[in-house]
Amino acid sequence: MRDFEFKNPTKIIFGKGKIAEVATEIPAEAKILMLYGGGSIKTNGIYEQVKDALKGRQLIEFGGIPANPEYDILLQALKVIKEQGINYLLAVGGGSVIDGTKFLSSAALYDGDSPWDILTKGIRTVKGMPFGTVLTIPATGSEMNSGAVITRAETQEKLGMGGPGLFPEFSVLDPQVVSSLPKRQIVNGITDAYTHVLEQYMTYPAGAYLQDRFAESIMQTLVDVGPRVIENPADYEAASNFMWCCTMALNGLIQKGVPTDWAVHSMGHELTALYGIDHARTLAIVAPSHYRYNFDAKKEKLAQYAERVWGLSQGTLEDKATAAIEKTEEFFQSMDIQTKLSDYTDAFEGTAELIAKRFSARGWTGLGEHKKLAPADVEKIIEMSY
Amino acid sequence: MRDFEFKNPTKIIFGKGKIAEVATEIPAEAKILMLYGGGSIKTNGIYEQVKDALKGRQLIEFGGIPANPEYDILLQALKVIKEQGINYLLAVGGGSVIDGTKFLSSAALYDGDSPWDILTKGIRTVKGMPFGTVLTIPATGSEMNSGAVITRAETQEKLGMGGPGLFPEFSVLDPQVVSSLPKRQIVNGITDAYTHVLEQYMTYPAGAYLQDRFAESIMQTLVDVGPRVIENPADYEAASNFMWCCTMALNGLIQKGVPTDWAVHSMGHELTALYGIDHARTLAIVAPSHYRYNFDAKKEKLAQYAERVWGLSQGTLEDKATAAIEKTEEFFQSMDIQTKLSDYTDAFEGTAELIAKRFSARGWTGLGEHKKLAPADVEKIIEMSY
Repeated sequence: MRDFEFKNPTKIIFGKGKIAEVATEIPAEAKILMLYGGGSIKTNGIYEQVKDALKGRQLIEFGGIPANPEYDILLQALKVIKEQGINYLLAVGGGSVIDGTKFLSSAALYDGDSPWDILTKGIRTVKGMPFGTVLTIPATGSEMNSGAVITRAETQEKLGMGGPGLFPEFSVLDPQVVSSLPKRQIVNGITDAYTHVLEQYMTYPAGAYLQDRFAESIMQTLVDVGPRVIENPADYEAASNFMWCCTMALNGLIQKGVPTDWAVHSMGHELTALYGIDHARTLAIVAPSHYRYNFDAKKEKLAQYAERVWGLSQGTLEDKATAAIEKTEEFFQSMDIQTKLSDYTDAFEGTAELIAKRFSARGWTGLGEHKKLAPADVEKIIEMSY
Repeated sequence: MRDFEFKNPTKIIFGKGKIAEVATEIPAEAKILMLYGGGSIKTNGIYEQVKDALKGRQLIEFGGIPANPEYDILLQALKVIKEQGINYLLAVGGGSVIDGTKFLSSAALYDGDSPWDILTKGIRTVKGMPFGTVLTIPATGSEMNSGAVITRAETQEKLGMGGPGLFPEFSVLDPQVVSSLPKRQIVNGITDAYTHVLEQYMTYPAGAYLQDRFAESIMQTLVDVGPRVIENPADYEAASNFMWCCTMALNGLIQKGVPTDWAVHSMGHELTALYGIDHARTLAIVAPSHYRYNFDAKKEKLAQYAERVWGLSQGTLEDKATAAIEKTEEFFQSMDIQTKLSDYTDAFEGTAELIAKRFSARGWTGLGEHKKLAPADVEKIIEMSY
């Protein structure tokens, strides 16, 4: 097991009807900016629940944060924060709204030239404007971590940021929100969370037995409850396990003491930036090819995953490892998540070369758990994903 | 899954040689009281490491906190805190030293008549004096939770306390400390952590699939690494997993969203108070009888545990459940942990009746996950443990 530090101070408030509790979590004198997305919260009742809970409080709204939170729109929200003297942010939405809110939390207290520097210069946020979240789409885990990914259409870029100052003070997780989600968002959420676990698990044996079993526990649970949630999003038992899995998949716990990969995300982000493919689907496109390309480096963990998550005990280590990749693809496909780039765009030719060039331009030469994947490797992996 | 709240702000600093980091975690101007136990830290080098790290700082020591931290001794430490104007506590020890430090954290800021009231009146500590820990014995999980158990010899009582103000600010976990532990403390630690998981798991199915799998993960890992640690406490890989299992077994995570039992602890505490039997061993004495006595209420989870932790897939649900209890006893016995009260004392006659009377006197009439166990049930369970 590797050395690690772990601290996660976010308070989780989990259960039916818990949205009302935002009122007790946000200081009475706070001047609140409530941030949300495309307006689905206005049709599913969540908007009303939050507004009711905060009746009589100093509250301004900012809606319209899109999936893959767009820098230019966030700058408009930043202007509101500064002009209105906002001192508390409340994200009501999924990972995009929460990530956008994290950017604003950081940018609101940033005194450099341009807030874009936070993303391009890798500035860690030690202290941000305090914020809480009401999670409406289980998927990214952003509700209990300190990271965010921001998109800039102008430059077709999607970049990460983070720091200990970006944990939500609280997050309300009411699994009832799942019942009103379209199937597309549910299957994206399952795929996103599942791939988050893979990124922190599918490397090489590192003697971190407990972390391995925790990671496997999340994947097993998603495999168990995923079909139930898709079949009936109002199945509270399935929805609550799905929701808690998504949070636990990326709240820092399973990455402690182990090597992590994250190359699938690095490559997937490019596919979203170039073609607007849903984040989760880019991961399902890239992951199988990534594991096939790096088979020798990952085969021990692939075989362990085959045995413990998929119950595959027959054959050689290589047989099991190979079957595990197939099982993973089948799992994604069973949820109508296609696993090839050509399933999403006809204009895929040249994508691999383009992404490799973008990685070279940024100086990204050491991806993956061994920090060895070069742009040339990325090019081959993306080609295998066509 | 039940509704829950989860917040655990303790910072874990895990790894080789991390004790030196106490210096950066404790504010420079703090007036520190360092608390420790029987002096083993002076022979294994930990005392020197802490002293070196805090060289030049305002530091006073208080040693001699015994196993099952004794109220009268803690009152002496409280006197030092008040007389010397201490404002930061550093526990260097196992669960007893850390629990004692939590009592002091609470008592130092308590303005009621007698600090004993904190225990007898169930006063929750919302704000305590800040403290950190250097863990020297993996076992209780006290290094990452907000609970403590304090003993008072005068009244032969062992009572619990807690509250959100009693999380350590930080805990240093260096698995190298395991290498100098006597076997007795290692096997106690494994048994203690294992039983902590059982108390939060061995109830009835509650649709909390992820929490079940996390609990099973901890038990599986303890079963895997326990024998390795006992065989060679210097096996860092085994020791690090053992240590992290103990912390995760009682940091709140696996108890969220599920019913919990804790009757084994309630009964076990009495055996320690009456006969001075090591805490972990009292759990091994009580647990098997408790599960046999409450077999019908617990058989579904016993059977699930049989399958997933012990790989027992043959027979009826009842067969598996019965075999699981036997496997648990065998696991304890394989570590030289005896599982009958008569293995520890010849004076066991009348114990069951005595403990039942003590429970009656305290008005404890609803133990266990169904809050139904009465003193009469306790009497039968203890009798079955003779």
